[in-house]
Amino acid sequence: MSYSVAVAGASGYAGGELLRLLAAHPEFQVTTVTAHSNAGERLAAVHPHLLSYADLVLKPTEAASLAGHDIVFLALPHGASGAITAELPDDVLVVDCGADHRLTDPQAWATWYGGEYYGAWTYGMPELPRADAATPATGTAAAQRAELAQTKRIAVPGCNVSAVTFGLAPGIAAGVIQADDLVSVLSVGTSGAGKSLKTSLLASEIAGSASAYGVGGVHRHVPEIIQNLTAAGGTGVSISFTPVLVPMSRGILATSTAKLGPGVTAAEVRAAWEDAYADEPFAHLLPEGVFPRSGDTTGANTVLVGLAVDERAGRVVVVSALDNLVKGTAGAAIQSANLAVGLDETLGLPVNGVAP
Amino acid sequence: MSYSVAVAGASGYAGGELLRLLAAHPEFQVTTVTAHSNAGERLAAVHPHLLSYADLVLKPTEAASLAGHDIVFLALPHGASGAITAELPDDVLVVDCGADHRLTDPQAWATWYGGEYYGAWTYGMPELPRADAATPATGTAAAQRAELAQTKRIAVPGCNVSAVTFGLAPGIAAGVIQADDLVSVLSVGTSGAGKSLKTSLLASEIAGSASAYGVGGVHRHVPEIIQNLTAAGGTGVSISFTPVLVPMSRGILATSTAKLGPGVTAAEVRAAWEDAYADEPFAHLLPEGVFPRSGDTTGANTVLVGLAVDERAGRVVVVSALDNLVKGTAGAAIQSANLAVGLDETLGLPVNGVAP
Amino acid sequence: MSYSVAVAGASGYAGGELLRLLAAHPEFQVTTVTAHSNAGERLAAVHPHLLSYADLVLKPTEAASLAGHDIVFLALPHGASGAITAELPDDVLVVDCGADHRLTDPQAWATWYGGEYYGAWTYGMPELPRADAATPATGTAAAQRAELAQTKRIAVPGCNVSAVTFGLAPGIAAGVIQADDLVSVLSVGTSGAGKSLKTSLLASEIAGSASAYGVGGVHRHVPEIIQNLTAAGGTGVSISFTPVLVPMSRGILATSTAKLGPGVTAAEVRAAWEDAYADEPFAHLLPEGVFPRSGDTTGANTVLVGLAVDERAGRVVVVSALDNLVKGTAGAAIQSANLAVGLDETLGLPVNGVAP
Amino acid sequence: MSYSVAVAGASGYAGGELLRLLAAHPEFQVTTVTAHSNAGERLAAVHPHLLSYADLVLKPTEAASLAGHDIVFLALPHGASGAITAELPDDVLVVDCGADHRLTDPQAWATWYGGEYYGAWTYGMPELPRADAATPATGTAAAQRAELAQTKRIAVPGCNVSAVTFGLAPGIAAGVIQADDLVSVLSVGTSGAGKSLKTSLLASEIAGSASAYGVGGVHRHVPEIIQNLTAAGGTGVSISFTPVLVPMSRGILATSTAKLGPGVTAAEVRAAWEDAYADEPFAHLLPEGVFPRSGDTTGANTVLVGLAVDERAGRVVVVSALDNLVKGTAGAAIQSANLAVGLDETLGLPVNGVAP
Repeated sequence: MSYSVAVAGASGYAGGELLRLLAAHPEFQVTTVTAHSNAGERLAAVHPHLLSYADLVLKPTEAASLAGHDIVFLALPHGASGAITAELPDDVLVVDCGADHRLTDPQAWATWYGGEYYGAWTYGMPELPRADAATPATGTAAAQRAELAQTKRIAVPGCNVSAVTFGLAPGIAAGVIQADDLVSVLSVGTSGAGKSLKTSLLASEIAGSASAYGVGGVHRHVPEIIQNLTAAGGTGVSISFTPVLVPMSRGILATSTAKLGPGVTAAEVRAAWEDAYADEPFAHLLPEGVFPRSGDTTGANTVLVGLAVDERAGRVVVVSALDNLVKGTAGAAIQSANLAVGLDETLGLPVNGVAP
Repeated sequence: MSYSVAVAGASGYAGGELLRLLAAHPEFQVTTVTAHSNAGERLAAVHPHLLSYADLVLKPTEAASLAGHDIVFLALPHGASGAITAELPDDVLVVDCGADHRLTDPQAWATWYGGEYYGAWTYGMPELPRADAATPATGTAAAQRAELAQTKRIAVPGCNVSAVTFGLAPGIAAGVIQADDLVSVLSVGTSGAGKSLKTSLLASEIAGSASAYGVGGVHRHVPEIIQNLTAAGGTGVSISFTPVLVPMSRGILATSTAKLGPGVTAAEVRAAWEDAYADEPFAHLLPEGVFPRSGDTTGANTVLVGLAVDERAGRVVVVSALDNLVKGTAGAAIQSANLAVGLDETLGLPVNGVAP
Repeated sequence: MSYSVAVAGASGYAGGELLRLLAAHPEFQVTTVTAHSNAGERLAAVHPHLLSYADLVLKPTEAASLAGHDIVFLALPHGASGAITAELPDDVLVVDCGADHRLTDPQAWATWYGGEYYGAWTYGMPELPRADAATPATGTAAAQRAELAQTKRIAVPGCNVSAVTFGLAPGIAAGVIQADDLVSVLSVGTSGAGKSLKTSLLASEIAGSASAYGVGGVHRHVPEIIQNLTAAGGTGVSISFTPVLVPMSRGILATSTAKLGPGVTAAEVRAAWEDAYADEPFAHLLPEGVFPRSGDTTGANTVLVGLAVDERAGRVVVVSALDNLVKGTAGAAIQSANLAVGLDETLGLPVNGVAP
Repeated sequence: MSYSVAVAGASGYAGGELLRLLAAHPEFQVTTVTAHSNAGERLAAVHPHLLSYADLVLKPTEAASLAGHDIVFLALPHGASGAITAELPDDVLVVDCGADHRLTDPQAWATWYGGEYYGAWTYGMPELPRADAATPATGTAAAQRAELAQTKRIAVPGCNVSAVTFGLAPGIAAGVIQADDLVSVLSVGTSGAGKSLKTSLLASEIAGSASAYGVGGVHRHVPEIIQNLTAAGGTGVSISFTPVLVPMSRGILATSTAKLGPGVTAAEVRAAWEDAYADEPFAHLLPEGVFPRSGDTTGANTVLVGLAVDERAGRVVVVSALDNLVKGTAGAAIQSANLAVGLDETLGLPVNGVAP
């Protein structure tokens, strides 16, 4: 059986990546693409790399364009999905790549975003361990997958949040690291900021330079990370989170550290991540002493994790890498959609990166 | 008065940068350049960007080449400066850009380096606050400058060490942050690794990718950072230190966090760095809410520092940026040499970066 | 029916890209990978981006390793394929990504390469128009495809040669441009130079810099370009060819110019390329006034061509872009192999690039 | 004697580079900086790399701000300098980095620019050989320098134009190459396009990609190149000119080819460039077989030239490299201003690049 698919917000980077991946998906057929300011243009004019869609024309992003599809992927600016979803039937699978439906706590929403709160949707991270789940398989990722298999509304995680969560959740779920004084510093590529026309995102400004932004815990990613790590079993989760923009288009490399739990051995630390990712198709723990390069995940729905215990500093250091547009956004969206329609979770998703 | 200068190890990146800066120095005259495998070649063949030295030929790196100069800069591989310095007269100013004479503790040397220990030289960071100094001006950088004014042997700090020390030392000296659970993650350019022919340093491997290396506290930079921050007044200094290689040639952007001292206010935090850098010619605290780009220091002997207090996480976050080859190596060497021969500390050193 | 495949020289960039593409091929099953200095290592240690091959171990590159497969791809240094192929049965399909079997003229081989000449194989560019073909369809690409459908030995074109040939061949085949004073200047990424450990290929040397190499017609690509354009119908083909290394890992953007044929109109020029590429699955002429970005072809088996007529200068300017590792090497190899075994030419080959 | 200097358009890249260079000039004192939309801001907020100007505030770009200075540098958008200059006294030295006063032929202006024509100013390329000069020293650069020494109005050449002119002019002046079928393809960094907020200049779009723009002879650089090469002695000058945007912030590498003059030997070719640049402080011919990297000129007022004769193709290939913001703009402006006020031409201008 094949599913008809619409992609709203197809002119942006996340929308383009959804299309690139969907072109290789054997069961999802993209029949509609929409955009705001680019409506009316040929998709090929906006995304010259997407040759397989040469004949598609962008329609306006509105409910009428999106009606009549089995699955609607939303790659819209934050705040735009609530209104448009309200006009779609309940039995359409809606997958939102924006932030509107990620936070489960209305108070956190009010604090970090403000404006109307449309409520949380099923969180699109199949690998998230769920210590808070009743059934099935409390403490494992099975609970999250079970929820995804039942849902018609999916909130795709933020890309930076995904990188940090994949890095730290296994250790927190297993209780081998402490959650109350986490520090994450991320090297992030520019595509995570989208196509926004800002001087600071010009190639001349980015070339040959690294720069931190949103320093001091002001990022909206923070409550989502805390939500995830709390779901994984963390208590009193607190994190110092700093993204650093570096001269690359794609990719996130998150260096996260946590205090080693009292009396925990290095072997127990390693076992926590090994157990968590042993059967995961897209999350891989690298061998002892090996650490990931973000470039090895380019174009793939893969997260690579390297792990070390710094005995002197009393901290575990986890380095996690993923492609912000794939495992960080479009790949996670498709993986979750696969689950929601009952397909093999891995369908249409590459695991091999485009390197060098 | 003019000083005759020799640069040993002139074929490498640090050596080249010494020459670039020395070409603009009004009192230092480079008359000899030496190299190992490139000995006998014209300097212009090795460093085609150094046109002002078109006529110089590289001599072999040996005492005979270096004899007869007022100042000798050593930009040699670690372990090479001890033997060659032993053959130079005591009254020659020797400035070593390598690690051989940085550590004051023989035990730390044995643990982190091993091999023969040649002893520590005066540390070439004029801005280092010295809580351990008797006179003059305990707790300020005056003590370090006083030592440099008397010395004939200078050990230039490591570039990553400099970035972290400039970030954290003011807060530690002022007692507003805790030194016992520091975390630093650095975005570093490739020139810090030198001209070594390693697959991992090939342009194809570096492009579009970020990668952590030496994860888990195994870097030789760690004892030097601890030494500096202890000198600045820190007790029980402990640091989790992770460098991340990013696709740029020059530059270090260090994101360092420390726990806020008990009862310390955000204003007190800011005042610590303001006071420390108010009169420094090369270290600048950026305004509230502004954070540095490493690219703004390219080619300049400048370190830029941005500061934030993350109340939720209970941590101070300091972002410090410098050019690893200038303020991180060659510029620091010349700045210290200026002091050692009694010149104005700033002579010949640019403060404006080459940007964009 | 499925074909068993061996990849010799799997540790290099071309070998890695063959494996990445073959992982998505529905009929080709990679069962053996070989290498020289990396023999005995796990493939995952050499190519951490190729997670789907986690269990493969590199065997030594020798006939015994390669025996027993339906198809053998050779991604070996120039000069290595002749000896090893001699030990393989005649009915094995051998696809050589090196230069050893590209030149049909022994004299050209002697002039440009020297050493033993193993003879030319069927040229692996299905799109090459063949004015020199007897049948079928003289002057079209059908002749080349007919040869490929019969062969057991394929010589994959050089990547720079492909970029120039795709740019100029349609105009030469149609007789709308003159072949006797061509000029091509190529922007090329570093992966085309392979994993060679050369100072000039270090990331620090490449970042922020463009450099021409092999200037003055000394490249071995020249005779292969002349061979192709002569096959396409050019007489007295002469080309000034200069590659410029630019700071990107993948990609070639060739800017080629030719004198406009006497009395030829701009419309006739455009029609030549339109006709040539109208039905090609992997070669696309962009609309009037649109020119390609090499990045839009990253990871795809696509060549994009833009075309302009400069009336003042009396020259046609063609800009052609491709990924040197895909349409320039591994993709062309698989496309040709598809034809040789009777499969759909496009099987397993992506047309959408990984951008941005 | 010291000169007071104003820089109009100081917030852009060219303006910033003027300021960086002027900071090191011993006789030029910047006292006023102006901008359009950034007027009222501290210069340090716009150019955080220019620490030496920490106290300057940007004034509005208008005649009142510029009045009372000895020298006014204009780094304004094309079309803006005519009106503002009309309000400045005749005895103020005005140096325009824009295009408004470059073309000497009103007809060429009308064809390529249109709008009001304000007339040509003295062309700010001291090295330009002038076959059209009456005195002094016809056929040499002395004539251009003599004109500059008398002028109060200087038009700084375009950066791409400079790269091509430095590459080709010596051969044309000496009559060893033909001027009627030139081809130039330039690799250019993004800063040449300024700080314009265009999607195509975003870091995500530029990373990992090369793209040609303005293909087919539509660039306004063309008439200026023809003007220069005609001044140098060329007859019937015709050029196919294509710039290619590559992933670097600064730098131009121009690959230019011309037909070898009839009967001219390779030695005669080389002698033409050797003679032209032997005594030039900023233009250097590299040794036989050596070709420039654009990165070796970063930050320096240097143009590097490499030369080859391709006997097979009957063409001379010249590769010329410079920093578009220095020798291509701000450095050339200061060099010309030095001449106009009677100072040593080289004052305040670095010859050593910032590399790697």
